[in-house]
Amino acid sequence: MSFLKSAQALKPLFDRVLVQRLKPATQTVSGIYIPEKNQEKLNQATVIAAGPGVIGPNGDTIPTSVQAGDKVLLPSFGGSPVKIGEDEYLLYSDKEILAKIEN
Amino acid sequence: MSFLKSAQALKPLFDRVLVQRLKPATQTVSGIYIPEKNQEKLNQATVIAAGPGVIGPNGDTIPTSVQAGDKVLLPSFGGSPVKIGEDEYLLYSDKEILAKIEN
Amino acid sequence: MSFLKSAQALKPLFDRVLVQRLKPATQTVSGIYIPEKNQEKLNQATVIAAGPGVIGPNGDTIPTSVQAGDKVLLPSFGGSPVKIGEDEYLLYSDKEILAKIEN
Amino acid sequence: MSFLKSAQALKPLFDRVLVQRLKPATQTVSGIYIPEKNQEKLNQATVIAAGPGVIGPNGDTIPTSVQAGDKVLLPSFGGSPVKIGEDEYLLYSDKEILAKIEN
Amino acid sequence: MSFLKSAQALKPLFDRVLVQRLKPATQTVSGIYIPEKNQEKLNQATVIAAGPGVIGPNGDTIPTSVQAGDKVLLPSFGGSPVKIGEDEYLLYSDKEILAKIEN
Amino acid sequence: MSFLKSAQALKPLFDRVLVQRLKPATQTVSGIYIPEKNQEKLNQATVIAAGPGVIGPNGDTIPTSVQAGDKVLLPSFGGSPVKIGEDEYLLYSDKEILAKIEN
Amino acid sequence: MSFLKSAQALKPLFDRVLVQRLKPATQTVSGIYIPEKNQEKLNQATVIAAGPGVIGPNGDTIPTSVQAGDKVLLPSFGGSPVKIGEDEYLLYSDKEILAKIEN
Repeated sequence: MSFLKSAQALKPLFDRVLVQRLKPATQTVSGIYIPEKNQEKLNQATVIAAGPGVIGPNGDTIPTSVQAGDKVLLPSFGGSPVKIGEDEYLLYSDKEILAKIEN
Repeated sequence: MSFLKSAQALKPLFDRVLVQRLKPATQTVSGIYIPEKNQEKLNQATVIAAGPGVIGPNGDTIPTSVQAGDKVLLPSFGGSPVKIGEDEYLLYSDKEILAKIEN
Repeated sequence: MSFLKSAQALKPLFDRVLVQRLKPATQTVSGIYIPEKNQEKLNQATVIAAGPGVIGPNGDTIPTSVQAGDKVLLPSFGGSPVKIGEDEYLLYSDKEILAKIEN
Repeated sequence: MSFLKSAQALKPLFDRVLVQRLKPATQTVSGIYIPEKNQEKLNQATVIAAGPGVIGPNGDTIPTSVQAGDKVLLPSFGGSPVKIGEDEYLLYSDKEILAKIEN
Repeated sequence: MSFLKSAQALKPLFDRVLVQRLKPATQTVSGIYIPEKNQEKLNQATVIAAGPGVIGPNGDTIPTSVQAGDKVLLPSFGGSPVKIGEDEYLLYSDKEILAKIEN
Repeated sequence: MSFLKSAQALKPLFDRVLVQRLKPATQTVSGIYIPEKNQEKLNQATVIAAGPGVIGPNGDTIPTSVQAGDKVLLPSFGGSPVKIGEDEYLLYSDKEILAKIEN
Repeated sequence: MSFLKSAQALKPLFDRVLVQRLKPATQTVSGIYIPEKNQEKLNQATVIAAGPGVIGPNGDTIPTSVQAGDKVLLPSFGGSPVKIGEDEYLLYSDKEILAKIEN
């Protein structure tokens, strides 16, 4: 009843980027459980898939600036939610992604 | 009294894409019927026809990125509804389609 | 008292397209007359005349994508009404026409 | 006390077009006088003067698509009114003129 | 206490045009004085100075289309007022000037 | 506690222009003091520093049209105030500056 | 539970610039402590990291105009706050940065 079996089946178009937001901490560093309403929503995410890019002003394709596996910083608004099974994903335009996070 | 005999007769212009939305599940996996008001509208669709594309910044045609038969993820808003007989279709701009769904 | 004797005298400029909307059915398939307020307005139209096109990004003219005689699907809003004698016509921009209808 | 002695003195700039709207019929075809408040405003006009055109995307001038003497169809809104003596004229951008009317 | 000694000292930048509006008639043609509140504001003006122009789409300067001494027709809104001593001037963008008035 | 020791330390980016507004007259020409609330805010300013310019449509830098020391006419709105010590400065985009004032 | 260990791990994309705002003075010059609500928010900041730039109109990358270590003047609005540990940072587009502050 759904074409979508897994996030891997999603191939973003243009410069869209499919990300999965980092889950908020459910315990404090000292091991105390944090109730769900107090868990802080994080703007950090892992890129699951990235589109091929968009056509630039001189007709060439501008490749997307992030790729699958990259850790990224999300803006605090925007993104189109996509639900696959029980998991929540988000689609952003490449231009909306604020920064890569390198280790 | 109508020029439109079938969806096959519709040839979208520019980068427009004619899609048919996936019908929502009418039974649960265990076979219980879901009343219509509880059926979840799906953002998944099959491409019926796609336009030839639009003129890009350097004068060349940018071909539409999806084609008839593709499974796609629709945005949660937008699209122009087209009724043919009893069937509902939607026209989107290629740029509005979020992702292809591959199997 | 009017320059406009017939629709044939109208030569749309740029990418404008003059269309005549398909008249709604006035009888059911079984021959019963439908009162005017119940007649469904159709978004199908015949192209009467099309402009030469607009100048594209590299200076060339992009020809209009439909021509006189084409059957087309109109968007559900927009268009400038033009009355010639007792007949109603509509002017659309080429880009607003959703699709051609082929037989 | 006015620089403007006649419509002929006005030289529209860029793609502006100076038009004079067709006067509404003041009698019915059978010769009965129509009171002014019942006279229908017509969207037909005669071009009095047209500007030289605007600079297009590749730096060339795109000439105005109508010229003095052309009969044209006006949109139902817009235009800058210009009064010269007792006569009313209108200035439109070339792109706003809907169509030429040929005989 | 002011850098501005005369209108001649003002050198408009880009495609800006400094104009002085034609003063409204203060007497009727038969010599009767018109009270100030009945004097009709005129949209006619004399160009005092014009800027060098703006950079066009291909990198060349598009020269301003009017020059000092030209009589012009102003739009009925817009323009930045500039007061020099007791005189009122207006700055318009070249593109806002409707037409030249030739004698 | 501040990086900003003097206006000379500010190097505007792109086509931004740092100006200092002409102080309003505090005495009449005959030597009578004007109370502060009656002093007229002047739209005249001296350019303190100007940015290098912006990238134009063909990839070249369009140099800023004013330079340090120029007297200019400001628009009656806009500008970002910058306070350095007790002095007030304003940052405008080059395109917002109305005119140069030459002596 | 966070990908973000330090500001150094953040690599801004496109023309985004990561800055740290100058901390407001907590004492007067004569050594008196200023209560937090009276401390003046400063629009001066140090650039921590800058993105590679954006694609310009002719397809080349326009490099970001500031780099790590630069002192800059921020606009009084805008910027996306990023919290790393206890420190607050801000992401601006390069075009939003008003000026460099040189010593």
